[in-house]
Amino acid sequence: MPTLITLTSDFGTRDPYVAAMKGVILERCPEAQIIDLSHDIAAQDVFEAALFIAGCADRFPPGTIHVVVVDPGVGSDRRGLVAQVGFQRFVCPDNGLLTLLLQRLSVEAAHAITNPAFMLPKVSATFHGRDVFAPTAAALAAGGALDEAGPAVQDLVALDIPQATRSGQSVSGAILHIDHFGNAITNIHRSHLGGATPEPFEIGGRRFDRLCATYGEVPKGDSCALFGSGDYLEFAINGGNAAEDLSLVSGLEVELQLK
Amino acid sequence: MPTLITLTSDFGTRDPYVAAMKGVILERCPEAQIIDLSHDIAAQDVFEAALFIAGCADRFPPGTIHVVVVDPGVGSDRRGLVAQVGFQRFVCPDNGLLTLLLQRLSVEAAHAITNPAFMLPKVSATFHGRDVFAPTAAALAAGGALDEAGPAVQDLVALDIPQATRSGQSVSGAILHIDHFGNAITNIHRSHLGGATPEPFEIGGRRFDRLCATYGEVPKGDSCALFGSGDYLEFAINGGNAAEDLSLVSGLEVELQLK
Amino acid sequence: MPTLITLTSDFGTRDPYVAAMKGVILERCPEAQIIDLSHDIAAQDVFEAALFIAGCADRFPPGTIHVVVVDPGVGSDRRGLVAQVGFQRFVCPDNGLLTLLLQRLSVEAAHAITNPAFMLPKVSATFHGRDVFAPTAAALAAGGALDEAGPAVQDLVALDIPQATRSGQSVSGAILHIDHFGNAITNIHRSHLGGATPEPFEIGGRRFDRLCATYGEVPKGDSCALFGSGDYLEFAINGGNAAEDLSLVSGLEVELQLK
Repeated sequence: MPTLITLTSDFGTRDPYVAAMKGVILERCPEAQIIDLSHDIAAQDVFEAALFIAGCADRFPPGTIHVVVVDPGVGSDRRGLVAQVGFQRFVCPDNGLLTLLLQRLSVEAAHAITNPAFMLPKVSATFHGRDVFAPTAAALAAGGALDEAGPAVQDLVALDIPQATRSGQSVSGAILHIDHFGNAITNIHRSHLGGATPEPFEIGGRRFDRLCATYGEVPKGDSCALFGSGDYLEFAINGGNAAEDLSLVSGLEVELQLK
Repeated sequence: MPTLITLTSDFGTRDPYVAAMKGVILERCPEAQIIDLSHDIAAQDVFEAALFIAGCADRFPPGTIHVVVVDPGVGSDRRGLVAQVGFQRFVCPDNGLLTLLLQRLSVEAAHAITNPAFMLPKVSATFHGRDVFAPTAAALAAGGALDEAGPAVQDLVALDIPQATRSGQSVSGAILHIDHFGNAITNIHRSHLGGATPEPFEIGGRRFDRLCATYGEVPKGDSCALFGSGDYLEFAINGGNAAEDLSLVSGLEVELQLK
Repeated sequence: MPTLITLTSDFGTRDPYVAAMKGVILERCPEAQIIDLSHDIAAQDVFEAALFIAGCADRFPPGTIHVVVVDPGVGSDRRGLVAQVGFQRFVCPDNGLLTLLLQRLSVEAAHAITNPAFMLPKVSATFHGRDVFAPTAAALAAGGALDEAGPAVQDLVALDIPQATRSGQSVSGAILHIDHFGNAITNIHRSHLGGATPEPFEIGGRRFDRLCATYGEVPKGDSCALFGSGDYLEFAINGGNAAEDLSLVSGLEVELQLK
């Protein structure tokens, strides 16, 4: 079975950056199987990338190598990292990209990338995706071990992610992400409600009397609140764009009173 | 030869939805070869997806599995479907996505997806791409038969697609689609003209004296009407964007008088 | 090892054009491995495509087949081309797409595509990506030789690319490209400076006192000038978008006086 290498970045594909990474990987490990996950992460948005990774990475077969390059600190002294998290392997800058995944899974091993054999002969100051992370992924795919990359590291950089909290019958959270369909996804997990249902509440000037199970439970054009595919509370409009119509944005606070 | 699985959706790639589908497929069938067709179908636009599929699916090798997820009815009682159309296999919601392809090819077999072994253990109400269609595709790629998915179905949902008509020397049709280059593509097929040529006609305030064979037959910046790569009449501007410059939109009627 | 076929185009992926090309390739050569490079080249922008290709193509393993379809002259008498440049193979219209790569690498062989066996049975006037270039790539991947495509050609079409020049202690160049991050990349190569450093200079109303080595050398929000990952002078804003904030556009002249 060929080794899978997934790619996630904020590079877009109008520039040759992703293409150059693919070339470097395949030149060094032609039998690797490259799978694009996204190159549309918002520019330099480490938090969005962390949400993305937490939403998909551990669906892949054990041993998959995930290269994640959202790297505003490229060229600074931030570390390059190889890590095993659960059964997945990651190659990325040490800037908090794994924070959300690590709420659910453990770091089995993590090493800084310092071995020149895991890099191109000449490493630029501005494009470690091509010069460090791509050749490191190829080295792992070709059979290299994590600990060949460099010294073990313990203290991965973590993002400060807003957490939902429950206090008595109150749940306080916030919108974390607006998705492609305009659905507004919060950090309130199904487990925060413990099976209880909320009192009617208001968000974006719209009143929500109850939680739905599916978008289609309300008429076309109506808004609904439901636990989405990741089991987080989200706001949607059946057949429409909730973020636009209700002016929902990341960071907006959400307060529920449970019955 | 690895089994090909193509993916078409309206998910975009900024969210982890497509990535999660790829993970599910590869986790269950690591030897599948995934080919992205599009994740840029307009949100919830089943008609655009139907045009897309009709424009490419039967170019693939026999047995290719096409997963098509444009699914505004997810979570409702709309059926999930596996179907063989011509030599291609499809995994998609039963919402009319195959309508245009079926104007040219026949359904050889179609089954509802009801077998839990073709789904993830837990099926969400909002993301059947990941929870139903991806594992179904993996099951087929791993050797599963269509009729293992569930009971045979006969009456596939069909979209009501506007048809061009010919009456005597008149041909009536409409613009169905504006493409990435701003070319406006109609539902008037070359065969509607039966070899005849139209009288000069007007669209978008521009007069067309004749049909061209190529864009380059008119000077840069001039508009032309021609039969495009699918043998449908289209309007284009050599080196420009006809839809913008001539205010052409989907639904605009086109009337020709043949000489 | 399966033969790699990369795809680069200005087709976007909302229309079925790229998907149809993939189908044609895989139908004719199922063991080919298709790698998307970009379908987001600006519409009909041969120069942007030439920059793209020069920025990535020779990173790939020897023998890789690069299909590049940015083809404003489709249907005219512009030639279709197969070429070996360095160790890479190209299938593309003869419209200058290889100009920038050829500043660094040599054409080893080039042939016009005239052999009908390298095309679909019916060739449209508007979509040679599907009807000529895809089947040609499949023919090469299946073992075909360049000279089976058609007669050798010598005089490839070349774009007129603005070159930076050095005269004494003056270097004159221009911005060639704005990338996805808003970095403005010039045609002034590190070698034009020959190790010298420039006097303070002004671009976009902003004064640059020196060249940096990394984006992070200046505080967040500040602009910097540095040699980027391709060793060309570029202007960036740490954590921001230089093109937007400094009103930088392609074509803007850049003059340096060396100390």
